[in-house]
Amino acid sequence: MFQNNKGTNNNMIMQLAVATPGQGLHEITPQINNAINEAGIERGLCTIFIQHTSASLLVQENADPDARHDLEQWLNKLVPINDPAYTHTSEGPDDMPSHIKSTLTCTTLAIPVLDGRTALGTWQGIFLWEHRHNPAPRRLVLHLQKD
Amino acid sequence: MFQNNKGTNNNMIMQLAVATPGQGLHEITPQINNAINEAGIERGLCTIFIQHTSASLLVQENADPDARHDLEQWLNKLVPINDPAYTHTSEGPDDMPSHIKSTLTCTTLAIPVLDGRTALGTWQGIFLWEHRHNPAPRRLVLHLQKD
Amino acid sequence: MFQNNKGTNNNMIMQLAVATPGQGLHEITPQINNAINEAGIERGLCTIFIQHTSASLLVQENADPDARHDLEQWLNKLVPINDPAYTHTSEGPDDMPSHIKSTLTCTTLAIPVLDGRTALGTWQGIFLWEHRHNPAPRRLVLHLQKD
Repeated sequence: MFQNNKGTNNNMIMQLAVATPGQGLHEITPQINNAINEAGIERGLCTIFIQHTSASLLVQENADPDARHDLEQWLNKLVPINDPAYTHTSEGPDDMPSHIKSTLTCTTLAIPVLDGRTALGTWQGIFLWEHRHNPAPRRLVLHLQKD
Repeated sequence: MFQNNKGTNNNMIMQLAVATPGQGLHEITPQINNAINEAGIERGLCTIFIQHTSASLLVQENADPDARHDLEQWLNKLVPINDPAYTHTSEGPDDMPSHIKSTLTCTTLAIPVLDGRTALGTWQGIFLWEHRHNPAPRRLVLHLQKD
Repeated sequence: MFQNNKGTNNNMIMQLAVATPGQGLHEITPQINNAINEAGIERGLCTIFIQHTSASLLVQENADPDARHDLEQWLNKLVPINDPAYTHTSEGPDDMPSHIKSTLTCTTLAIPVLDGRTALGTWQGIFLWEHRHNPAPRRLVLHLQKD
């Protein structure tokens, strides 16, 4: 889509491709920190934007996988597939629920950068939440600001 | 409220007024891209902030209007008007549901700018989601960062 | 965790500690505006990041306390404690609901700065939403960009 390169103030915009293995919370913290290192940014601000409407972004606990499991199950119950009220069904029964789940979570995240990495808390990780059932190629755009 | 003008680093803060025709998802992608052009920004970061608590922001599918219809109906069912538990009712029966809907969606969005426009995915649009039933004048504040 | 200090472009990253008195919406607008003043920023962008996954951030109405009460009650009903489906229970019955509530609200907020303060609308305040029942020490990281 575009070349990764720097603006006049050394800020950088990068594209990051993530192939998801199907529905679930997939941690992308290492890929984000790698991009920050590649851009040579010690401190600043990292903005992550996902170019899709059936997958989303989330900062959540990355310690106990049970927390992610419960989160996924809870949201599946709140936003069921095969709700007879859906009219947007041409892309499959998991498509409209995916748009709703994406709406309830985040399309964009802004995280301060300190010491060359995202300033996450001890138990936090950055996740790409795939809402479609099948594997999908997903694209993120990162804006990396250098202070 | 304020004059649009540039900071010393050519970043710009602009006010954008949007008159909504009543409850629903109203696309504002053209207005946002116009503001980016007016600010003369080819690449950088666009932050959109809505100064209201009964309307919100969303990036969602802009291709099939059925998807927006289903999203609106789903949220109306999750957050009904006339819930007897509401005590904040002085501003009308659609006010407290609007605060809740605003809470579940976004007050602020940060989107990278490439080639003079927001780096949206193929099927994405930027929407102002009016949650009140009546038309309302809404104000956005844009922070446009130039890289 | 780190020293507050400025980058080469006068942007600033600051840590802000907030001791919450237990579950509820706690306004932090004054602390945020104080940080902006301390950083000497007249106009720019303020990004607020919370380093926790059982407390979150929100911009909401700060005029009528009934609105916050209704919001809290509504979310408590949507995400009950003691749901038998939860498997992540080792940290107490209010922990998994707190992760879900945090997921449905915000971990990060970006707000333009004008005239030395956040460009909030007339009725808006910035809140730290504590989802755990007990008081907790919470840490925010602020990225303050100077234009």
